[in-house]
Amino acid sequence: MWLLLRQGVQPQGVLAWLEAQGLGIQLRSLGERWIIEVEASDGQAEALLRLEEVEKVFISERAMPLVSSWQGGVQLGTWQRGEGLLWIAGPCSVENRESLLRLAEALKALGVQVLRGGAFKARTSPYSFQGLGPQALDWLREARALTGLPICVEILSETHLPLYADVDLIQIGARNMDNYWLLRAVGELGRPVLLKRNPQATVEEWLLAAEYLLLYGAPWVLLCERGIRTFERSLRYTLDVGAIPVVAAQTALPCIADPSHAAGHWRYVTPLALAAIAAGAEGLLIEVHPDPLTAQSDAAQQLTLSQFALLKEKASTLAAPSSRRLP
Amino acid sequence: MWLLLRQGVQPQGVLAWLEAQGLGIQLRSLGERWIIEVEASDGQAEALLRLEEVEKVFISERAMPLVSSWQGGVQLGTWQRGEGLLWIAGPCSVENRESLLRLAEALKALGVQVLRGGAFKARTSPYSFQGLGPQALDWLREARALTGLPICVEILSETHLPLYADVDLIQIGARNMDNYWLLRAVGELGRPVLLKRNPQATVEEWLLAAEYLLLYGAPWVLLCERGIRTFERSLRYTLDVGAIPVVAAQTALPCIADPSHAAGHWRYVTPLALAAIAAGAEGLLIEVHPDPLTAQSDAAQQLTLSQFALLKEKASTLAAPSSRRLP
Amino acid sequence: MWLLLRQGVQPQGVLAWLEAQGLGIQLRSLGERWIIEVEASDGQAEALLRLEEVEKVFISERAMPLVSSWQGGVQLGTWQRGEGLLWIAGPCSVENRESLLRLAEALKALGVQVLRGGAFKARTSPYSFQGLGPQALDWLREARALTGLPICVEILSETHLPLYADVDLIQIGARNMDNYWLLRAVGELGRPVLLKRNPQATVEEWLLAAEYLLLYGAPWVLLCERGIRTFERSLRYTLDVGAIPVVAAQTALPCIADPSHAAGHWRYVTPLALAAIAAGAEGLLIEVHPDPLTAQSDAAQQLTLSQFALLKEKASTLAAPSSRRLP
Amino acid sequence: MWLLLRQGVQPQGVLAWLEAQGLGIQLRSLGERWIIEVEASDGQAEALLRLEEVEKVFISERAMPLVSSWQGGVQLGTWQRGEGLLWIAGPCSVENRESLLRLAEALKALGVQVLRGGAFKARTSPYSFQGLGPQALDWLREARALTGLPICVEILSETHLPLYADVDLIQIGARNMDNYWLLRAVGELGRPVLLKRNPQATVEEWLLAAEYLLLYGAPWVLLCERGIRTFERSLRYTLDVGAIPVVAAQTALPCIADPSHAAGHWRYVTPLALAAIAAGAEGLLIEVHPDPLTAQSDAAQQLTLSQFALLKEKASTLAAPSSRRLP
Repeated sequence: MWLLLRQGVQPQGVLAWLEAQGLGIQLRSLGERWIIEVEASDGQAEALLRLEEVEKVFISERAMPLVSSWQGGVQLGTWQRGEGLLWIAGPCSVENRESLLRLAEALKALGVQVLRGGAFKARTSPYSFQGLGPQALDWLREARALTGLPICVEILSETHLPLYADVDLIQIGARNMDNYWLLRAVGELGRPVLLKRNPQATVEEWLLAAEYLLLYGAPWVLLCERGIRTFERSLRYTLDVGAIPVVAAQTALPCIADPSHAAGHWRYVTPLALAAIAAGAEGLLIEVHPDPLTAQSDAAQQLTLSQFALLKEKASTLAAPSSRRLP
Repeated sequence: MWLLLRQGVQPQGVLAWLEAQGLGIQLRSLGERWIIEVEASDGQAEALLRLEEVEKVFISERAMPLVSSWQGGVQLGTWQRGEGLLWIAGPCSVENRESLLRLAEALKALGVQVLRGGAFKARTSPYSFQGLGPQALDWLREARALTGLPICVEILSETHLPLYADVDLIQIGARNMDNYWLLRAVGELGRPVLLKRNPQATVEEWLLAAEYLLLYGAPWVLLCERGIRTFERSLRYTLDVGAIPVVAAQTALPCIADPSHAAGHWRYVTPLALAAIAAGAEGLLIEVHPDPLTAQSDAAQQLTLSQFALLKEKASTLAAPSSRRLP
Repeated sequence: MWLLLRQGVQPQGVLAWLEAQGLGIQLRSLGERWIIEVEASDGQAEALLRLEEVEKVFISERAMPLVSSWQGGVQLGTWQRGEGLLWIAGPCSVENRESLLRLAEALKALGVQVLRGGAFKARTSPYSFQGLGPQALDWLREARALTGLPICVEILSETHLPLYADVDLIQIGARNMDNYWLLRAVGELGRPVLLKRNPQATVEEWLLAAEYLLLYGAPWVLLCERGIRTFERSLRYTLDVGAIPVVAAQTALPCIADPSHAAGHWRYVTPLALAAIAAGAEGLLIEVHPDPLTAQSDAAQQLTLSQFALLKEKASTLAAPSSRRLP
Repeated sequence: MWLLLRQGVQPQGVLAWLEAQGLGIQLRSLGERWIIEVEASDGQAEALLRLEEVEKVFISERAMPLVSSWQGGVQLGTWQRGEGLLWIAGPCSVENRESLLRLAEALKALGVQVLRGGAFKARTSPYSFQGLGPQALDWLREARALTGLPICVEILSETHLPLYADVDLIQIGARNMDNYWLLRAVGELGRPVLLKRNPQATVEEWLLAAEYLLLYGAPWVLLCERGIRTFERSLRYTLDVGAIPVVAAQTALPCIADPSHAAGHWRYVTPLALAAIAAGAEGLLIEVHPDPLTAQSDAAQQLTLSQFALLKEKASTLAAPSSRRLP
């Protein structure tokens, strides 16, 4: 059971009272507020709610107090939330220093606000290319220094945390959305996190994963829909555009889409991207590669720079008439 | 096995040859061309292909020669394909003469090109309202006479065929997409058909259902994506926007979307509608009711006239930058 | 809204009262009881429940009064419910008189109680073999006369009803589970029906389809689980063995399984069949063909006679320790 | 690209040759054999296959050489593979020393071969009970010392590895099946691993996860089917019994089932368990709790001891007629 204390209230009084009752407790700060975990039975909730300092008592396993009440600023490079789309772009995996630097400059010139690139790759087969690891991270830092673009990199293991200390936007990939110890550890870094939806997760489970991140310290979470797994396999996954307005009805956290992984083929990236924007996505995560045919992972789904430039132009036209907020 | 004869060729010569071989045959016309069903083993395909008059031999159960080669005009009320969206709108079920006539006038004033309305309803429970049947069809005809709008009505049973003789666009609902005898019978009417995708059907199975319609005589088929069934149940179905460009890559038949059934709630109809347009849908099928709270079926998902007007305005702005054709 | 009258009560009094209120009504008999459909608003339910003759008022679209309260005898050939498994076996489609007669004799000798065979086939492609139709039905009747085995044949169209007048067990195939007008028409024949689950239907929707059949006159319905459509495609469908005990918790109607269609390949028919029996299925529907390699439909999934004999032996051993009833 | 060297061959010669070609290489031992990762293009495969020491070259991302060729002994407590079912049982989460010890003794008396218990719990909500961690592991060790039963415990984080050094069977839970860095780290312990299938994973992806474990050092992997996520939600998940024979056709690794998580309710655990056995599962993982109503996680799905005893009796009767091996 969790007690959310009122804004401005200090926790000492409640803590003392709870200890006097012999209840096990644990204190956690939520930005300017406090939340206390109490080892109490459900029957005791009523009594705890009577404490003056307590605003809410959470018992239900479906409660997501932080996600549903989140209100905050989102700062990411030059992106001004509400004044245009957020563009995160870059190669599936970082494979080469020169080509990464050139690509970063080109993407910046096209108005991309965040550079993404894979260092460690989650591959279904152990025999697939697994990424260049620390080397890739160094080149991404170099690209950041060169262009001023913040970088977004996926983390796959708690043991890699030290390598991510200065990554601007840490990505939790779809496969790790319910890797709760990784969520905790990443949350504790106190940095913004891009959280992809697991292709089998309900929207509720996805938002509960964001609740983990906020609870353990992330200031905000950038939700990213990337397709769910269904019986239809014409494309790699089924982009669940309906999830975008469903999320918007439940939280003020920003939500973008990744049409590259949903499509699995460059040919379908653009229509899916436009659909996501029209459904209210605030931005896009797009895989772009200077020469997709030579890419060591997900070659088929990466756009060339000129395909990307065309997508960006189309999407920007769409973004105005759409509006994220529901009626 | 099926033999498609070359353009301009008459079938008599081939028929005689096939009969001489002792093969069972059946002749069918495809507009200006002929197709012959032959009871032959796969091993005989090679020999048949050597006949001068034969353009193609179809053996595979996945072949959809008519769907994939279809090229034709689409005429539906005032809609000019390629010059704006097709709007099909009206109540889930027709319940009242006066309100239907008023609604039809209002929809026409808003630029809707086709009036839809349910006469017989496919309901999961036998205790749910099943539609007013022939009475509803009469009122729809009256609304057509009043407004000049063509009407689109779903057919549920072969035994109702005589009632649909003058329906402008006959709808095969999602539940009947693989009711092949109904497809045959409706195809034989030689009228355009709106074919909804079954929520469990792959795109391939959906297009094969359209192949039935074309083979049995429909001049063209208006494909309609209306959501597939997945594990995610925040909305009633998952609108598969990716299917729209996948269809466009395989056939020139027009494809629209029905966001009302996918959403299941009016609140989500607009974002799904916009997403479908952005993905390349050429039109929308929208449930509109003058007073949704009193509707006898699917009350939650029907838009009011003013909600519909707002959606139409937003969608029209989107339609320009999107483009149906894939790169 | 539907009113279920108490056992032994005659409907005249209630009908007169309802008419006096100006409510539209329709009377239907349920074996020894009466059910009345009333066009009333939900708000009037309370008043109707106060009528002495009324036992229950059904408003909810999820109510399945007949399915949940069904209690009756099941008579099908020599099968004694509760004393061994029901075996329904035969070819996917009937293709040849001689081979059907020989197969029927062989199946009878193996203890099969019902002969199945396809006359009209529901095929995804219009170019696939569609069945021999009336000819096949005649051969099945001949096989019945020869062996004494009742026959089970799928019906695909309301227009074929006259052909099925003497079919012992009429099969509604998976694709037609939600073809409600076919359900009505078949129900009105007053004959037992084998109802396959649509691969996209929830258990609730499946049972509501059975409710249609019972409401329109079927004395009982044999439910048949045959696999649902999921993302996993190693086998053709995912046999939902969990549905078997879920059904048993909701209705006393018998439930069997069709592992042939779920597996899609003979190699996996036996393990799925045994799993279904262990989960509580009361019988099996198995496709058996004297020479599967020559079958014109679903060749891969049909068992030979000796494979079937082996399956039957294994399954019979299993059936004893399992028990349909839940704790 | 990976080169599998022939049995008995030493790698030095090949390594020298590869280095002379300037190819990046990495050597890994597979028990008695060697596998070499080579950074070569696909076009070079042909040349490498000509090396005398090389048995196979793996390029495809779908290759699973270790899983498909695995042949080895499986040693787990008193279980003799092939001579009866493997029973792994215990509480969802370990909550209390006394009750765990008593339960372990009771399970042993019933013939259970492995004790399972949750120490760290993967919970969808951060506000749910997360397990007692190291304390729970200590009590499990104590139970092992008392009963002689080997213990099976799920690991959630690489940072917990030191705590699992003496755990007999390390469980990778469904959520972590594609947490590849955890798979690597656990594989490197060189211990047997129980690998649950992720509810969205295809059988192929599941086996590729086992390939990771074998490649990094696990001597064998116990595969565990526990239900996949589908549209049907009557039960928590859909137990995919078909996966059991599909697995058996592809690998000699043992495969069991976990009906507790699939069912989500004790009422349905037994029919699912029996179905899995009938389909060829070699054992079961069952959640048993001395007093389920007081359980802090998954209370609804845990069996009491007497329910478990009854299940065990039924399952043992079934096991004989079934046979894991396919025809």
